[in-house]
Amino acid sequence: MFESAELTHVLDKDTFREEEQKLREALLAAQFEVVERKTFPVIMLVAGVDGAGKGQAIQRLYEWLDPHHLRTHAYADPDEHERTRPRLWRYWRDLPPKGEFAIVFGPWYNQPLRERIFETIDDAEFERELEAINRFELMLANEGALILKFWFHLSAAQQKRRLKKIKATPGGGRHVLEEWSNITRHGRIVVDGQKMARRTSTGHAPWVVIPSGNGRYRDIAMGRTILEALQKRLHTQAGPAFAPAPAVIASPDRKTVLDALDLSRTATDRVYHKTLESQQNRLAELVDSQAFANRGLLLVFEGVDAAGKGGTIRRVTAALDPRRFRVYPIAAPSDEELARPYLWRFWRHVPRLGNVAVFDRSWYGRVLVERVEELCDEAEWLRAYSEINDFERQLAASGMVVVKFWLAISHEEQLRRFKDREVIAFKKYKVTPDDWRNRQKWDQYKYAVGDMIDRTSTQAAPWTLIEAEDKHYGRLKVLKTVCERVEAAL
Amino acid sequence: MFESAELTHVLDKDTFREEEQKLREALLAAQFEVVERKTFPVIMLVAGVDGAGKGQAIQRLYEWLDPHHLRTHAYADPDEHERTRPRLWRYWRDLPPKGEFAIVFGPWYNQPLRERIFETIDDAEFERELEAINRFELMLANEGALILKFWFHLSAAQQKRRLKKIKATPGGGRHVLEEWSNITRHGRIVVDGQKMARRTSTGHAPWVVIPSGNGRYRDIAMGRTILEALQKRLHTQAGPAFAPAPAVIASPDRKTVLDALDLSRTATDRVYHKTLESQQNRLAELVDSQAFANRGLLLVFEGVDAAGKGGTIRRVTAALDPRRFRVYPIAAPSDEELARPYLWRFWRHVPRLGNVAVFDRSWYGRVLVERVEELCDEAEWLRAYSEINDFERQLAASGMVVVKFWLAISHEEQLRRFKDREVIAFKKYKVTPDDWRNRQKWDQYKYAVGDMIDRTSTQAAPWTLIEAEDKHYGRLKVLKTVCERVEAAL
Repeated sequence: MFESAELTHVLDKDTFREEEQKLREALLAAQFEVVERKTFPVIMLVAGVDGAGKGQAIQRLYEWLDPHHLRTHAYADPDEHERTRPRLWRYWRDLPPKGEFAIVFGPWYNQPLRERIFETIDDAEFERELEAINRFELMLANEGALILKFWFHLSAAQQKRRLKKIKATPGGGRHVLEEWSNITRHGRIVVDGQKMARRTSTGHAPWVVIPSGNGRYRDIAMGRTILEALQKRLHTQAGPAFAPAPAVIASPDRKTVLDALDLSRTATDRVYHKTLESQQNRLAELVDSQAFANRGLLLVFEGVDAAGKGGTIRRVTAALDPRRFRVYPIAAPSDEELARPYLWRFWRHVPRLGNVAVFDRSWYGRVLVERVEELCDEAEWLRAYSEINDFERQLAASGMVVVKFWLAISHEEQLRRFKDREVIAFKKYKVTPDDWRNRQKWDQYKYAVGDMIDRTSTQAAPWTLIEAEDKHYGRLKVLKTVCERVEAAL
Repeated sequence: MFESAELTHVLDKDTFREEEQKLREALLAAQFEVVERKTFPVIMLVAGVDGAGKGQAIQRLYEWLDPHHLRTHAYADPDEHERTRPRLWRYWRDLPPKGEFAIVFGPWYNQPLRERIFETIDDAEFERELEAINRFELMLANEGALILKFWFHLSAAQQKRRLKKIKATPGGGRHVLEEWSNITRHGRIVVDGQKMARRTSTGHAPWVVIPSGNGRYRDIAMGRTILEALQKRLHTQAGPAFAPAPAVIASPDRKTVLDALDLSRTATDRVYHKTLESQQNRLAELVDSQAFANRGLLLVFEGVDAAGKGGTIRRVTAALDPRRFRVYPIAAPSDEELARPYLWRFWRHVPRLGNVAVFDRSWYGRVLVERVEELCDEAEWLRAYSEINDFERQLAASGMVVVKFWLAISHEEQLRRFKDREVIAFKKYKVTPDDWRNRQKWDQYKYAVGDMIDRTSTQAAPWTLIEAEDKHYGRLKVLKTVCERVEAAL
């Protein structure tokens, strides 16, 4: 993949000036249209060998594009906040909104590539990392992002000459020599870098190898690629990267895991109060332990209206140090959230290791309410299952214990609770027209829940179904499950 | 102020239970109303002597209030991101939106109080810090925040007993002994703490001293205070903390600093190109210098439509490393920004030391377009002058070089540029109906600019007026000014 880039490619000054003039006008016009339309973000990855002039190429982009809508995110060694979260967290954090351009300097490829070159990971691990990146980029593309991945290349001889020259120049290129690779590693970079580029060059996020022996040639090549990609995207009606898979088919007998639950289970008052206290103490001790500092806890509560999520959450948080937990009630997304990929608004709440996040409703909204109420396309909720699994796998891999609850009650019990709520003085418990509407779609929700549990109950993040018909029984089961999962992890 | 808190205050268990029951229902109902209305945030500061049970009191609040809308922000020693920004930055970052409750544990008082107790600052410095805090809280109150400041107090004897007990209990209160003060400092805390409380107890943000010798008494006292404050706020129509000051009066001859500018100044092509390059190189070197790492640069560009802000900004950024600068075009605020104090959306873009932020339009919108177009109350733009001065003073104090430009052109020149723009192919330069409307209010803007410059050209952050009738001349003056200001600072 790098072979043709190692040939000599040169552009003379006059041709460059002429080309540049046209390119710049066209780029500015295209950028302006992207900014105006606000329908997709442009994400440009900058990678390649040292000394290829990546910084200069970026600088050139600032001459050609409007810097008001172009932002460079540079990533080096992870800092304190980044180290205590999943690897991709910092890239998620910085994802540009629709209509904006971002340059990712030191992209998500750097860490696995460096680790492979220095042999701290083996080939199998390297491939797993690349696979995870492929899934991440597929998600971005499906969410509409235009992704351009540039590999700035030099042959070994070109690199040697370039680095010598940089060394001899005062100032200017001092970054180059601080970077992780060096001439003697050129062979490894070419081997592993090519492997990486081949594995991760996809239709929706291709690698573009830029021969960088000549600065003018390099910049024009990059600029033309960007222009072409922008124009293509602006002038063709882009759909999702793939056609939607066949819809989920309900099983003929319409049975779901929910049907297997025994909702008659109860806990007596005496057992409840005694066990509640002992389980809360157990949880408090677990979370306060030394070992927990390198772990973390992420709790997801889902259930139909009036299933008792709020009350259960209060019994859990009562056991926790307020400095270390946050409850996130998930309501309508803000406009900043709507301008970014679906999972962004959950990634931004991923806690640091040692902390606890409690989600009252969650990212599963996409495959529950959004599916049933047809608030998103079929293709969107269908792909959400694997996107969610990827998200949770990363959380688990970083040390988080992910515990997910479905609080189940019967159709009749829900009615009883609605009626009770309507007579209670606290406005807090008022039943909204939405609640009544949702209730009419009971069966549709049931099938959606069944599919959700079938498709997202993974080893890293299994679902626990809670018989919540009796509130006391349900709360105890939740607390015990949380304790067991944390205990097993520590 | 602490005297009566040192008396013995006790509440027996039965009275507590009875009180708690009523308090809890009333608190929940009041909180629900705050959440529903979304008209103001509630900010509760938690401070006081060690061992007073601040953590326990917070924990109690989580039992009484709905944790979905209550968030604790705990602050200890500043981390990497916090150290490289103004002191208040981390508190600004975490300000709750309207309708939410925040507990500030380790509030903005802790650092000055600790420094005073350990005598790393003198009394005059301490008072200056307290004054700055008063201004910060006044701004919060003016922006609608309900602020409650709790000082949890123990007498020296009570504290001694309490700490002994905590030490003897396994687990539980280990945080206490890690904290900054200790028994022998009790006298200093009382002296300096009282001074602090007296200086900063205002009508809109009073200190409430909570006797904490008895846990039940402590919690009921705190809970009642919160309830009363919420009810008072919910049931009275709250206005700004102060009545608007008299309006700014235009000088009888209607002359402003803008009239004194000589817009006939020009730079020849030859001078322009030569000087532009040399000034860009000079700026690049300055920003790349070792000394700049502990400073930073914040550029503000204001000017009428078509004054040349965009083009000038591009000439500045061309000199900078894209990894270290960001351009912020200021457009309409997002809904997350609208839910917080006016300056929040600018604080969130305050760069770390060593970096450069360029604002194309800025917080001055409040005293320019918002004033002229009557998009905010008179009281709001009138108090904005001092709020802005406070903001910029903090930036300067943290090491930032703050450079502000007003790009001035004549009424005729604006017309010429509008007409030119309308025939240029690039849509980018189209003139909007808004631009024409603004143009008709030329004089009103002129007076607003005059007032702005008079009131916000401070020593820490002076305005520079740019004769921008000739684009070349204007750009050179901007670059030179930036270089001079940075050079003087390093």
